Amino acid sequence: MRNLTEEVKAILDAPNGVEEIVDNIGHLQPYDMALLLEELDYDRQQQLIDLLPIDLATEILEYLEPETQYRLLHHSSEERAMALLQTLPSDTTVDLLLAIHPRQAEVLLTWLPGEYRERIDTLMTFPEDTAGSLATVDFIAAREGWTVGRTLEHIRKVGRRAEIVSYIYVLNARGQLVDVVSLKEIIFAPPETKLADIITNSPIVVNAHSDQEEAARLLSQYDFLAIPVVDDTNRLVGIISVDDLVDVIQEEATEDIQKLGGSEPLVESYLKTPVLTLFQKRVWWLLVLFFAEAITGNIMRHFEDALTEVIALSFFIPLLIDAGGNTGSQTVTTLVRALALGEIQVEDTLQAVKKEMSTGLLLGAVIGSAAFIRAQLMGGTVNLGPVVGISAFFIIAWASTVAAVLPMLLHRLKVDPAVVSGPLITTLVDGVGILVYFSVAKIILDIG
Amino acid sequence: MRNLTEEVKAILDAPNGVEEIVDNIGHLQPYDMALLLEELDYDRQQQLIDLLPIDLATEILEYLEPETQYRLLHHSSEERAMALLQTLPSDTTVDLLLAIHPRQAEVLLTWLPGEYRERIDTLMTFPEDTAGSLATVDFIAAREGWTVGRTLEHIRKVGRRAEIVSYIYVLNARGQLVDVVSLKEIIFAPPETKLADIITNSPIVVNAHSDQEEAARLLSQYDFLAIPVVDDTNRLVGIISVDDLVDVIQEEATEDIQKLGGSEPLVESYLKTPVLTLFQKRVWWLLVLFFAEAITGNIMRHFEDALTEVIALSFFIPLLIDAGGNTGSQTVTTLVRALALGEIQVEDTLQAVKKEMSTGLLLGAVIGSAAFIRAQLMGGTVNLGPVVGISAFFIIAWASTVAAVLPMLLHRLKVDPAVVSGPLITTLVDGVGILVYFSVAKIILDIG
Repeated sequence: MRNLTEEVKAILDAPNGVEEIVDNIGHLQPYDMALLLEELDYDRQQQLIDLLPIDLATEILEYLEPETQYRLLHHSSEERAMALLQTLPSDTTVDLLLAIHPRQAEVLLTWLPGEYRERIDTLMTFPEDTAGSLATVDFIAAREGWTVGRTLEHIRKVGRRAEIVSYIYVLNARGQLVDVVSLKEIIFAPPETKLADIITNSPIVVNAHSDQEEAARLLSQYDFLAIPVVDDTNRLVGIISVDDLVDVIQEEATEDIQKLGGSEPLVESYLKTPVLTLFQKRVWWLLVLFFAEAITGNIMRHFEDALTEVIALSFFIPLLIDAGGNTGSQTVTTLVRALALGEIQVEDTLQAVKKEMSTGLLLGAVIGSAAFIRAQLMGGTVNLGPVVGISAFFIIAWASTVAAVLPMLLHRLKVDPAVVSGPLITTLVDGVGILVYFSVAKIILDIG
Repeated sequence: MRNLTEEVKAILDAPNGVEEIVDNIGHLQPYDMALLLEELDYDRQQQLIDLLPIDLATEILEYLEPETQYRLLHHSSEERAMALLQTLPSDTTVDLLLAIHPRQAEVLLTWLPGEYRERIDTLMTFPEDTAGSLATVDFIAAREGWTVGRTLEHIRKVGRRAEIVSYIYVLNARGQLVDVVSLKEIIFAPPETKLADIITNSPIVVNAHSDQEEAARLLSQYDFLAIPVVDDTNRLVGIISVDDLVDVIQEEATEDIQKLGGSEPLVESYLKTPVLTLFQKRVWWLLVLFFAEAITGNIMRHFEDALTEVIALSFFIPLLIDAGGNTGSQTVTTLVRALALGEIQVEDTLQAVKKEMSTGLLLGAVIGSAAFIRAQLMGGTVNLGPVVGISAFFIIAWASTVAAVLPMLLHRLKVDPAVVSGPLITTLVDGVGILVYFSVAKIILDIG
């Protein structure tokens, strides 16, 4: 029973009928009611949703998975299901309609009033991960010619449905967004003021086809509670509220972390993901890396003679390839995150690469010195110190550089830089590392 | 000129005096004004802040670094500086006071009115990264005995200063939080309704001493715009608004990503971080891992005889230790993120470890088979296929298990699990990997 509050657990533990549950949950938050509902069997879930007032039932539905939402709507009376669907926030409705079978979605769409159905239709056209796909049409719009008094009246009339009452979106006659005015400004302005006199004419907007990360970035930069989404002609398509973007921000970070770790991102939460799915998300990358790594083995085979002559050379292989991999992993995670946050742009490529090369040279000098001492102590009669030290220096500098160039390059090519994971960099620098190591050994030790 | 909009660039490019700038920035967002200000020299920064209306100057100050805030306040007239400081949101004031020298902070504190100063003093006591340290006292509070009408009057009086007007915090006579009522509910209720009749009595709160991540988690679960922060006796200390928590969520994800990559988290944004700082943040972990990895070298030395006998054994060392490291990296990043999101709790330890072991066994079987074929093809006369295949299987299963147990253990010990980075796991499983490999080789090939 995940994250259930003590109150929810108490209600579930008591041997209650659904009527008693309804009587006892009045003080809970809708989110907790949704968690409680998920613990019930299908029959009692249905009874609960059917017994609660429409507004509350809708708020609970919002927190459920589309499949559950559909099941509950489907088994309600048509009249009630229609009422629920019409009260559901428009972004939740869009997610629901896109998740179920198109035929089922068609039926549900006919339950919506004409104009609203058209707007939902529009929202459904935006591809996943675009700003448009997150938008809701439950905002408060006003015309630029209106007075503050008329606007307040309008807010009282439609505000109950709005997702965010803090902002009023001012449109011109063509439906284009002229400005965003805060509720505060409206409340504190004299009623006869025209909206046109309050507005300043340069709202921050996001295009419906932009990436959802762009919306998240703007919202967190400007500290807004919602950001308007417009089409190419600047007409207001909808708004994205900050709570929806918080989920996006969390998801994007989760995906990046999983990719950087070398697996495909999970769709569901960890405990809900079956072992077979975990396996599938990881095995392909492991196989790709395995085949790439096979090249390193081939390179080593070329140095069989050198290895045979100085077997102690092999003792430092794990140390050297790990030093390269670790440095590369440090660089790539830092850069990929900075790119995701918009801290680095394409035009900063050169600066970033220079920075990582310089850092790599410094790190190489330190670890190279440590490696020199270690090898000197361990090498016995053979002069391994310089070989291992110099190799470590080059491998680390090389790893930093590659780990800087690759994500910057992918970013420029508009490919997600997070595919350059720590494991991928490790594998990529291994071959060169081995090559450097044995070449240095052959020169210094005069072998092979 | 990072992230400057075209409009800001145009203003900066024109050879304008500060007066012209003031005339031209009316349509900009305060955030963009702050970016513009940062591009000016100190003198013109000061003139700009001194020329703008107090409210706007404060909004710009909010986006600046504490050092810049202090410099601008310090060089304003005392009267204006006092006005600016008193208009600044309380959480910004707290950050400023904590960032500057305590003596300077003392002077600034004397500029604040008595009761407000005390509240700022309280906020300053909460350690960094606690919910209390993020709280602002700029919220709208009402008494439970008030009517809706009286509350609305109060909102009109104090609302201008409030960070979030969407929620009204209802307190009892002891200052304890009774409930949170939304502005919507107030606007739509008849004016004579008592607040006590609207409230439902179980607000979601966060303790001032809780970790800030707890606040972020609650806020994103419940989709609130702000969350109340209370002390141990349930008295309202302040609120945290969602836009501040968005920053926390981004920062925490950034820190986790950088730690998982094997470096200490950066404090400043990437381009602002000098090479020497990058170096310092990375070199310690590299050294720690270097010394840990030295053990692997020692283990290998014990198998010198086996290696001398079958030199081809060394060809598969990079492949095997990378396979272990990569699998470990996949597991650890997935688990650390799931822990950060609260998807896994302490009591799920066993389930998570079982899941990772099962996944590891499957992955081990697949990569082990690939390794068997590869080694068989490459091994020549020696029967290396079974040695490499069996070793790969065990190493991968072992890596998954270690990479699952360690973060879960640290989480249980209340240590940040993200210190178990991909590089750390790689290093930790290397020694065992080498041990397994040569032991299997000795048995199957009957050597050493």
